[in-house]
Amino acid sequence: MSRLLAVDWGSSSLRGALIAPDGEVVEERAFARGILTVAPDEFPAVFDSCFGAWMNPETLCLISGMAGSQQGWLEAPYCPCPAGFDDIAGQLAWVEPGRIAIVPGLSIETGGAPDVMRGEETQVFGALLLLGLDNARLVLPGTHSKWVTVSNRRVTDFSTWMTGEIYALLRQHSILARTLPASDPAPDAAAFEQGVAHALRGQGLLHTAFNTRTLSLFKRMAADALPSYLSGLVIGEELKSQSLQHGDSVVLMGAPALTARYEQALALLGVAAQRVGDGATWRGLRAIADTLPHH
Amino acid sequence: MSRLLAVDWGSSSLRGALIAPDGEVVEERAFARGILTVAPDEFPAVFDSCFGAWMNPETLCLISGMAGSQQGWLEAPYCPCPAGFDDIAGQLAWVEPGRIAIVPGLSIETGGAPDVMRGEETQVFGALLLLGLDNARLVLPGTHSKWVTVSNRRVTDFSTWMTGEIYALLRQHSILARTLPASDPAPDAAAFEQGVAHALRGQGLLHTAFNTRTLSLFKRMAADALPSYLSGLVIGEELKSQSLQHGDSVVLMGAPALTARYEQALALLGVAAQRVGDGATWRGLRAIADTLPHH
Repeated sequence: MSRLLAVDWGSSSLRGALIAPDGEVVEERAFARGILTVAPDEFPAVFDSCFGAWMNPETLCLISGMAGSQQGWLEAPYCPCPAGFDDIAGQLAWVEPGRIAIVPGLSIETGGAPDVMRGEETQVFGALLLLGLDNARLVLPGTHSKWVTVSNRRVTDFSTWMTGEIYALLRQHSILARTLPASDPAPDAAAFEQGVAHALRGQGLLHTAFNTRTLSLFKRMAADALPSYLSGLVIGEELKSQSLQHGDSVVLMGAPALTARYEQALALLGVAAQRVGDGATWRGLRAIADTLPHH
Repeated sequence: MSRLLAVDWGSSSLRGALIAPDGEVVEERAFARGILTVAPDEFPAVFDSCFGAWMNPETLCLISGMAGSQQGWLEAPYCPCPAGFDDIAGQLAWVEPGRIAIVPGLSIETGGAPDVMRGEETQVFGALLLLGLDNARLVLPGTHSKWVTVSNRRVTDFSTWMTGEIYALLRQHSILARTLPASDPAPDAAAFEQGVAHALRGQGLLHTAFNTRTLSLFKRMAADALPSYLSGLVIGEELKSQSLQHGDSVVLMGAPALTARYEQALALLGVAAQRVGDGATWRGLRAIADTLPHH
């Protein structure tokens, strides 16, 4: 078995790991070369400059993420849900046959509108392997959070939530930006929980977000607590829509500071969170490599 | 009875009307001198340059709006709800006693958080007078929409919705801005209604907003229809939270293009809208002037 170069090429970041035949991650590299920074004809050159030194004749490269989008290196298909590991492993888009391939994303039709993911499917299947699970509800918080339902190792449902992006818009560009401190103070756990609780019983973010301003206006919350309160409002709004029951458990994957906030918010609903580290993508790509006949 | 200079001094605009003793609006002026453009000590000079020529010894000036906020000319109190016309007329903040006064705003405590308005209270009481109503549900769409309940001529409930601002943030600063046309195409009534309907049955704006992107990605909606669709999503989200019943009616006040959209969205819910023109503020200020002993 040859070695694998596993690449996670997203909108704003590019990460790669060199993985030995025994599965060990030998080395990792990260670059600020998300696909939004790469012109349509620059992908081969950017790839070479970042990972060319790792690409010998014994190396297979698998790439997941937005590199497979219309604005990426090579458009990879979406596998319609329900979709299992075999579906994505069987529909790789080959940039160089036998050498460099891009993993397809997933699509779904819910309530009259489509939804999509690229990259998270690999994280999800990797996490299932790491945890030994066949059924799970998974949460991948971020700029665009994903909620994913897996039944019998197939993704049967998922949805995208613009939680992180709308928080950033409110934080930086809305009228609230005038009330909130310019730079982020230390997180305030009590204010965050107050925001989550207000969102859970509230009338919707279009209204509750304004309370960030009015609590400050009436001097009922210190300025340094307001960003955490607003974060709680936005994350609470996301959780409110997930039909969670007391006693449920979810798998939580993402940046540590953010998953810690979700864990705290989920605990308010009595939902347990099992965290998975950032090795899930590498594990998913390695599993795909293992399905290839000549690998 | 002397003549009245009625002024609506908001965050981003300044409008004034000279009103004769018989109630006729003699002349109107508008300036791009909202309070956000005025330094704390500049208010008297800006007022003089805009309206000085109208201020003779026979003229009373009443000002409603953000000019009474902490960042305005002189802080006017908030009257806590329930509040009636007499409450605001009786608590004017005098800039120059007997000559120039600012109308107080309203505040309310709902679900553990305060809410406020400044300026809309005058519009509301003016609209009640124009329409001869003692009880009404009123909607004032805008950057921050207000929903107001009036019972026996008292404001018993109200709430603020950041609908217009969040639409603008999504339209101009979010990932959706890359998908939407740079300048606004003609409104698309069908796409708008599709957005409203999707919001009404949907999982919340954090999710549905992303459908603006996916409908475009799968070429299921033309680029020129997307801004109207997004507008429908945001307005539909606001309406979803108002506990409206088929057969209800509301009073609708605001800019004609925006109130037309709300009227269309409300019709989908079977709610009739009665529109009031922009004379409501002048009518409200005139009614306050009529309560003053020496006016």
